[in-house]
Amino acid sequence: MCLYMYTAQKTALIVYAHQSPASFNAAARDAAVEALTGQGYKVLVSDLYAMNFKASATAEDIKGDLKNAEHFVYNEEMLVAWQDSRLSDDITEEQQKVKQADLVIFQFPLYWFSVPAIMKGWIDRVLIQGFAFSMQRMYDNGMFQEKKAMLSFTTGATESMFQPDGIHGDINVALWPLQNGVLHFCGFQVLTPQIFWCPAFSPPPVRTAMLDAWRERLSGLMVEKPLSFAPTEFFDLSFQGGFRLRPEVKEQFASQPYGITTAQHLGKPLPPNNQMKAKQMDS
Amino acid sequence: MCLYMYTAQKTALIVYAHQSPASFNAAARDAAVEALTGQGYKVLVSDLYAMNFKASATAEDIKGDLKNAEHFVYNEEMLVAWQDSRLSDDITEEQQKVKQADLVIFQFPLYWFSVPAIMKGWIDRVLIQGFAFSMQRMYDNGMFQEKKAMLSFTTGATESMFQPDGIHGDINVALWPLQNGVLHFCGFQVLTPQIFWCPAFSPPPVRTAMLDAWRERLSGLMVEKPLSFAPTEFFDLSFQGGFRLRPEVKEQFASQPYGITTAQHLGKPLPPNNQMKAKQMDS
Repeated sequence: MCLYMYTAQKTALIVYAHQSPASFNAAARDAAVEALTGQGYKVLVSDLYAMNFKASATAEDIKGDLKNAEHFVYNEEMLVAWQDSRLSDDITEEQQKVKQADLVIFQFPLYWFSVPAIMKGWIDRVLIQGFAFSMQRMYDNGMFQEKKAMLSFTTGATESMFQPDGIHGDINVALWPLQNGVLHFCGFQVLTPQIFWCPAFSPPPVRTAMLDAWRERLSGLMVEKPLSFAPTEFFDLSFQGGFRLRPEVKEQFASQPYGITTAQHLGKPLPPNNQMKAKQMDS
Repeated sequence: MCLYMYTAQKTALIVYAHQSPASFNAAARDAAVEALTGQGYKVLVSDLYAMNFKASATAEDIKGDLKNAEHFVYNEEMLVAWQDSRLSDDITEEQQKVKQADLVIFQFPLYWFSVPAIMKGWIDRVLIQGFAFSMQRMYDNGMFQEKKAMLSFTTGATESMFQPDGIHGDINVALWPLQNGVLHFCGFQVLTPQIFWCPAFSPPPVRTAMLDAWRERLSGLMVEKPLSFAPTEFFDLSFQGGFRLRPEVKEQFASQPYGITTAQHLGKPLPPNNQMKAKQMDS
């Protein structure tokens, strides 16, 4: 019996944002394409600069008439346009890729503690309400809970600068808006970020070692345990309840030494490396 | 004696990102223009969507030859182009506005726990090395330490969702990358953010009251105490020292109940509302 026949081919999408094919980011992307292809994946790459990907959220993202041209509200217009299949082709194409993908890797250089604008544009325009989330479907109830996603990025800073006693502060805090606010919000299982610390100022052997470690990690990526976030069942998801922790959950955590996550900290010390390492305890 | 003669006119810059003139963001911008003009300010507005502001960081941002066309490194190319006055005109014009400004207000709807891509593009392309920071001049040694800056934004979420026990987590964590990583990094004195919680779902009298409170605040904005961050003198700013807290400072904070800032937390509970409220104790 041939197992292959029962196993649908898996798909990975790499959303990639660097201007130069000679960059370390390009090398990291190529390593991922090669490793995942070698594992039998179909690998799609959205090379945002090469595609001249439009970053700004405008009325041009919608074909045909607007719902309210007098007062253009992007998220409302996009929801209706998505329902009616009237999104611009570049957005629809990216959504098709996301739909197919079992894994999405965002590969980029960190710009200002975040993604470059062109990649923020991909997030703003592709991950729209209806397609990527709804008021009923967010976080661990999210649309993409069968999919995995991760950030893979280079920094200009050293690792020590992004410590809780470093000049830039704890990297876990810097990662929260992207990993919780974007990826986990859409339901993705968020894999540990792949951070290439300061490759531009590293000698060639160090750069090579970074890429080797990345290849090594890629070989076991899909069996990694994802980061842990607060389950939505912890919260009273009603306007009366304010979308805040249920009293019994709060009580349960009252005796714990740490908060639940980096931002759901409950006035306690942050759980160490909550956005950097998968929790091993319930494995 | 006429005091006016000795007082140079102050300038405010509003970097504004909403697609619709009928939006609450537009009303918030207009309130700021009116209030600041009334106080004698020269008010400049960069209406990013109306300007069709380019968001993506590309080689087109540079006039003339590149330093290394084979391997385009944006921040290095931009530094050289800035030194040689070869930046594209749209960037130079924005930099001229920032130079003049005593106060910069970023007015936007929160997209994915951050600024819309078009505004991230303004940050990525305008606040470049050389003009906005250098390795010697960052944070409280930054270029813009005589200037003030602030975020003013609308949310789709309620205030309770962004509490330390809310579904989105502590707003202070979400604000850190923008307020510390962008504004304070460039040296700006960062004023308390102006957050308009969920105006789209608020009845007209509530929206009116929000704008009235904003006008009221604007009347005293320039005498407000800014948010507090960790002074750079707390850190050993050398590669050997790792840009980490000096041992004597760490020792000094060992007995404190809270960390220094939201991300320089030292494994302690976060100082409450560090990114939301100015510290009153040394006033």
